[in-house]
Amino acid sequence: LNILNYKSTLQETQERIAPYVHCTPVLSSRLLNELAGAQLFFKCENFQRMGAFKMRGAANAILNLTNVQQAKGVVTHSSGNFAQALSLAAKSLGIKAYIVMPENAPQVKKDAVRGYEGEIMECESTIAAREALSKQIQQEKGATFIHPSNDDDVILGQGTAACELLEDYPDLDYIFTPIGGGGLIAGTALAAQAFGNSCNVIGGEPFIVDDAYRSLISGNIEKNKVTGTIADGLRTHLGDRNFPIIQKYVDKIIRVEEGEISVAMRLIWERMKIVVEPSSAVAFAALLRDKENYKDKRIGIIISGGNVDLNNISF
Amino acid sequence: LNILNYKSTLQETQERIAPYVHCTPVLSSRLLNELAGAQLFFKCENFQRMGAFKMRGAANAILNLTNVQQAKGVVTHSSGNFAQALSLAAKSLGIKAYIVMPENAPQVKKDAVRGYEGEIMECESTIAAREALSKQIQQEKGATFIHPSNDDDVILGQGTAACELLEDYPDLDYIFTPIGGGGLIAGTALAAQAFGNSCNVIGGEPFIVDDAYRSLISGNIEKNKVTGTIADGLRTHLGDRNFPIIQKYVDKIIRVEEGEISVAMRLIWERMKIVVEPSSAVAFAALLRDKENYKDKRIGIIISGGNVDLNNISF
Repeated sequence: LNILNYKSTLQETQERIAPYVHCTPVLSSRLLNELAGAQLFFKCENFQRMGAFKMRGAANAILNLTNVQQAKGVVTHSSGNFAQALSLAAKSLGIKAYIVMPENAPQVKKDAVRGYEGEIMECESTIAAREALSKQIQQEKGATFIHPSNDDDVILGQGTAACELLEDYPDLDYIFTPIGGGGLIAGTALAAQAFGNSCNVIGGEPFIVDDAYRSLISGNIEKNKVTGTIADGLRTHLGDRNFPIIQKYVDKIIRVEEGEISVAMRLIWERMKIVVEPSSAVAFAALLRDKENYKDKRIGIIISGGNVDLNNISF
Repeated sequence: LNILNYKSTLQETQERIAPYVHCTPVLSSRLLNELAGAQLFFKCENFQRMGAFKMRGAANAILNLTNVQQAKGVVTHSSGNFAQALSLAAKSLGIKAYIVMPENAPQVKKDAVRGYEGEIMECESTIAAREALSKQIQQEKGATFIHPSNDDDVILGQGTAACELLEDYPDLDYIFTPIGGGGLIAGTALAAQAFGNSCNVIGGEPFIVDDAYRSLISGNIEKNKVTGTIADGLRTHLGDRNFPIIQKYVDKIIRVEEGEISVAMRLIWERMKIVVEPSSAVAFAALLRDKENYKDKRIGIIISGGNVDLNNISF
């Protein structure tokens, strides 16, 4: 990633993916503004195609392949939103997507991928099995592996949400995003550097999976020993492509308790009347936890997605 | 209501209430379009202030009072969205709202009214007690009674949602709304007459409370013997102000089963990522039930509100 040219690179990325993604709306709520003591601008990627920002990075990664590569398809391992995003982006471009998923992945996630015509390749529920099968598909099919978050084109694609947000609101003081694999926050940080006016980027992370918080302290990519957060999109760790960007351009990471995530999610559902997944609520939860430090500021908050299993919600 | 002048009357109403209401967004979904076989435009009154279209009618009714009347406050009986709407509209204008509610009304509804500074006056859970207390408040306080749906200014206010929708999409073939007390559909029908281009208005109504459907057949205002629908906003019957408008200008009423309401509501939550109340889903359920008759049409659907008790949702 040529860090010096990311302004034009981000603009090119926006143009490239425009036919395949929605420019999502930005919503505000008087009541949530009062509660936070700041002016909040929620960038609603829950309204993105397939229901999450991941569509942006997946589309960009596929569009940057050569025709020869595209003809042989793409492969990833994910049981979350990136699996759906890569499947839909591939379908939109008429190419093949192989999705490596653990055989015990929830049926609802398998159905979602199949709904977008991704071909599910099942393996045992270990990292070794997952990586072995991905390798095998790359070799046998000639498919190109695309990582859900640690890939330059994916990072740039995810950054376009913040580009759009800053087009509408160029004078934001802060942008808050959740931090999981690091693709969204790294892309957002590049966008804030390129198009913001002294706009700082802040990550929200569950205490239970605070690998990114610890990584910024230690200077190494830390991992999580347990993953039992309700913010199921944030269980993964950073990678060598996004970590340097995060080290350089992310202002800080605020950790939140599970209960704070639930409260923030409920506030968004009840007050803004939008369906967001728990991972999406982590950025807002982080702001609420630390709101004394952001009084009267203009704050963008990226709502990362809205894919929840309505059979399993409880407040 | 001077039916001949409703075009300018609606325009004046829009201007009058503009400082007190949101111009709500219109959302679309490729997936729901495919499912319905038509082009759908959802007017999202769940994003309206206090979470429902009722804010429009309440604001208009209060704004049309004289200063002397406003100084003495307003009164209504409702345990639903109109209670909140009148409270918030009154609060916004610095006047007093008395809300007659049965003593056994759910705590969450009482809290919502108090949140908007409405003064709750409790009575027994009978129509007689409700009306007696309303009368008493009118006499003792000099407050003006405002009916939730059978009031010309309320009807005109509710019609402004369709005015906005037709400003954005002037060539709609149909607008679907839920039908409960009749204020929304009557106002919508006036707006469609005034600003539509051969735009027909269709009501969705639960089979269990099909009073409006039966009223159109009999020519008299019919009532419901049972009220056990999940669409709790649609349990009331029509009134003498809105029924003539509905008779004259509403194309037809389509009745739906309770299960169809649930399916439609779930589709809206899952696919559009917005929180809507069961009553809101009735219009979409009606379209889905009868979709063969609306192939390839351009259809506005009014999402009436998004106030649900998240502790009690189940799909």
